[in-house]
Amino acid sequence: MNIKDYIYDIPNFPKPGIVFKDITPICNNGEAFKYVTKELAKFAKESGATHIVSPESRGFIFGCPVSTELGIGFVPVRKPGKLPREVITEEYELEYGKNTMCMHADALKKGDKVVVIDDLLATGGTLKAAINLAERLGAEVVGVACVIELLGLGGKEVIKNYNYKCLVEDTEEL
Amino acid sequence: MNIKDYIYDIPNFPKPGIVFKDITPICNNGEAFKYVTKELAKFAKESGATHIVSPESRGFIFGCPVSTELGIGFVPVRKPGKLPREVITEEYELEYGKNTMCMHADALKKGDKVVVIDDLLATGGTLKAAINLAERLGAEVVGVACVIELLGLGGKEVIKNYNYKCLVEDTEEL
Repeated sequence: MNIKDYIYDIPNFPKPGIVFKDITPICNNGEAFKYVTKELAKFAKESGATHIVSPESRGFIFGCPVSTELGIGFVPVRKPGKLPREVITEEYELEYGKNTMCMHADALKKGDKVVVIDDLLATGGTLKAAINLAERLGAEVVGVACVIELLGLGGKEVIKNYNYKCLVEDTEEL
Repeated sequence: MNIKDYIYDIPNFPKPGIVFKDITPICNNGEAFKYVTKELAKFAKESGATHIVSPESRGFIFGCPVSTELGIGFVPVRKPGKLPREVITEEYELEYGKNTMCMHADALKKGDKVVVIDDLLATGGTLKAAINLAERLGAEVVGVACVIELLGLGGKEVIKNYNYKCLVEDTEEL
């Protein structure tokens, strides 16, 4: 299956000059969504994951099915004000702006093995924040996976010390 | 399995007087998360769903695994400015405030059979908006499911004409 057929390039979204990668056609197709889940789950299983960690909201779309496929825990990484109990936070630079992400302080512990999953690796800011949050709670990050890697934005450099998998490499060119 | 053990009551979140139902302990436990997914998937399958529709972000946590479990499409319902292509929108009242939700205009069509899944049924506003969006695109809503129903807030009345399943009934009392 060629997953690239289910990723639409949307020019000038959310800002002029940005080419947005729309992954909703993957989800909309049951076969494509299942294929992507199986591929990510295979990687997470081989990496020895006990937990999947994903940032909201598109990360949930791919991370949650991998968790239930493997029968392992899922830990959401969310924007401030969304998680109702004690959190730890990380601030980081986005491709377009600044962001803070949070994780429940009791979500992970020493001995837990985490695979971080997101839809897209661009500059790597969001993925690195998720990695930092997991590590600060004592977990070991045994893998990082995304559906699409946007080449040329430096994301791979940011996560170079981690076991890494992406399903599709792409560029911002149309 | 008693799912209620994995739902934490958080008083005065996000506002004074509100008791928030924290579902992250369900996800954090692989067995509980898988159990909830299987129960929702059983309902969706029996309802004849061809697509799952869920509002962001907590709806994604439960809706996406059901989609991949059944190998059927998933349609996200999102806040304005998040979906990159042409959308249709619904405005509605929340338990605490107002909200607008969007769906890609090509996400569903006549003949599609939809089960709408969310984490929580409170006043029913979010679920009804998702139902309306699906129906406006010509799809048939064959079921509505949530993990928790908050009793006494009128949600069940709002969706009374639909085939309905909830896994846990609860109240805002502590």
